[in-house]
Amino acid sequence: MTTFAEESWGKRPDFIVHNPMPYNAEPPASVLASGEITAVDAFYSRNHGAFPDIAPAEWQLTVDGMVDQPLTLTYDRLTTDFTAHSVVATLACAGNRRAELLKVRPIPGKEPWAKGAISTAEWRGARLADVLDAAGVHHHDGLHVAFSAPDVAPESRPVQSYGSSIPLSKAMSEEVLLAWEMNGQPLPRAHGGPVRVVAPGYVGARSVKWITGIVVQEIPSQNYFQALDYRILPAEADPDTVAPGEGIALSSLPLNCDILVPDDGAEVPAGPLTIQGWAMAGDGHGVCRVDVSLDDGRTWRQADLHPAANRWTWRRWSLTVDAQPGPLSLTARAWDDTGVTHPESPASLWNPRGYGNNAWAHITASAT
Amino acid sequence: MTTFAEESWGKRPDFIVHNPMPYNAEPPASVLASGEITAVDAFYSRNHGAFPDIAPAEWQLTVDGMVDQPLTLTYDRLTTDFTAHSVVATLACAGNRRAELLKVRPIPGKEPWAKGAISTAEWRGARLADVLDAAGVHHHDGLHVAFSAPDVAPESRPVQSYGSSIPLSKAMSEEVLLAWEMNGQPLPRAHGGPVRVVAPGYVGARSVKWITGIVVQEIPSQNYFQALDYRILPAEADPDTVAPGEGIALSSLPLNCDILVPDDGAEVPAGPLTIQGWAMAGDGHGVCRVDVSLDDGRTWRQADLHPAANRWTWRRWSLTVDAQPGPLSLTARAWDDTGVTHPESPASLWNPRGYGNNAWAHITASAT
Repeated sequence: MTTFAEESWGKRPDFIVHNPMPYNAEPPASVLASGEITAVDAFYSRNHGAFPDIAPAEWQLTVDGMVDQPLTLTYDRLTTDFTAHSVVATLACAGNRRAELLKVRPIPGKEPWAKGAISTAEWRGARLADVLDAAGVHHHDGLHVAFSAPDVAPESRPVQSYGSSIPLSKAMSEEVLLAWEMNGQPLPRAHGGPVRVVAPGYVGARSVKWITGIVVQEIPSQNYFQALDYRILPAEADPDTVAPGEGIALSSLPLNCDILVPDDGAEVPAGPLTIQGWAMAGDGHGVCRVDVSLDDGRTWRQADLHPAANRWTWRRWSLTVDAQPGPLSLTARAWDDTGVTHPESPASLWNPRGYGNNAWAHITASAT
Repeated sequence: MTTFAEESWGKRPDFIVHNPMPYNAEPPASVLASGEITAVDAFYSRNHGAFPDIAPAEWQLTVDGMVDQPLTLTYDRLTTDFTAHSVVATLACAGNRRAELLKVRPIPGKEPWAKGAISTAEWRGARLADVLDAAGVHHHDGLHVAFSAPDVAPESRPVQSYGSSIPLSKAMSEEVLLAWEMNGQPLPRAHGGPVRVVAPGYVGARSVKWITGIVVQEIPSQNYFQALDYRILPAEADPDTVAPGEGIALSSLPLNCDILVPDDGAEVPAGPLTIQGWAMAGDGHGVCRVDVSLDDGRTWRQADLHPAANRWTWRRWSLTVDAQPGPLSLTARAWDDTGVTHPESPASLWNPRGYGNNAWAHITASAT
């Protein structure tokens, strides 16, 4: 265990390590504000077990279930037989912004992710649709594509390796990849190398790392993490006694936004202050407007929206305000291209496992 | 005008008429609670001009623009050459629940719709996709299908007849109809007869009544109502001076819910009280949970969800509580199948034209 505890997996020295093993760590919020693409050494890392160590030459992927020709693919075949596509996509942990929920009520046994369990990379790999088509996938409505991987998760009951699924309709979408590159480098082991799923627009839990098995099936994955863990339970539920399938499975990401700069609690110089953050719409929708309030929502100003590579990435925004000396209360909210905004308060979103916090973003600071 | 002012268009005597001409009227909330399907005499009626009076034998529909074979269809050809399909679908005016926004700040010149600008019917007609295919529609990404009709809208600038559009991708979806029947009857004139568009999941404004023209084009409809009126403007915008295209065009309906029984302000007997309402998710998603609070959101109970015909209809819900003598404050909120809920307060959703109120539902009552 010592080697794991001391291992930083190539991450920046300022990484916030919630757990050395399984390795769970996030960058400071301000680091994420530096650009649309997050550097590999700044990309958050959320894991449920020790990292498998699979050389590309040893890696194999089986594809079976409701397909006409089950396949076994080597790394060589995947990377040479299939056309490579690049997609810039934001991945976000369903537990991002849990720290705000923890201020409402405790959430035992879960990492206190702050603002950094979200990052963006350029992924490159084969389209999952092309691989499924090569296997002669059955095109029935309502099928699911389940992913399995060899990383064993000690927290699961019974103990099992990690897995999840996405609907076949999503799996056949052009943005979903079996990726072997991240920001132009071979996919690092700490991010699922040699090959991982990238399912843009879905919670990170569906982008299974170190993937070795794909099964097309009639039901969603029955893996512990999908059937039991990554679910929105009613506030009054007891997470230790709920049955598999209770609650609402987290799938596509909700409309959400956050403030990355300044830091929560920061002291900033009075005068011009540039507030920076991100916003992202659900289900492949676009972000049309981000509002910022300095008076707790009584009045709002519209932030400048930066260009986004596509609808699968966060949309960065900024707004320069005149910070008067004294306490600052900053709130941000986003509106999608259907004219919808998200809930105001983390208090109304608290749930026993602390997932899906998409309340308006709020920080305090002081100007001197 | 007198005939119009005195015309009730076959609606129930208890209809709440906001304007006799153009005829805009809604049923009392409790009437909507009586079943999944709303009777024709209880279905809300939202209009921008006098009703065209077109006999089926005189009706014609032209289909042109980006199609290979422009078409002109008679009522006979539409109803005999194309397979008829039935879809149960809820239509909702983008201004439904505006009355709650009016309590926040005035909204001059707009009807004060309460809870009744939403209703559900079984529609029957040809799939719009089949008609577009018969015209050899061009299948390019990003095209739009624009609808025109002969009802002239005096409020428009310049004065023009009503029109709107939907994306081609939506137009080709199986749920979108050119409907000539409503609840098993020939489509009444007051609901767009002889033929109207029914675009389930979108704001009612896109389900154009008395349709006579379809154009497949590269841009959304430039009609006054789509380019200027049916838009979410920032709270600080002046609706009289905004340019066409400003704000966010209303398209798919947001996640929303409402309480239909008891009436807001009702006196009810103390003891068992059955609260009834509806919930609907955006974009064809499902409603997974409805919570009801009797203590302004501090604690919640889950309502019973009634079956829904499909994902294009409201999902009715009910919950029987023990009403203690004294004032009652009832709040309801819905969660969709991605684990998302909607904003808490109409105050944060106020916008200059009063559209898109999808705040948590709230009423007060008293038990004696």
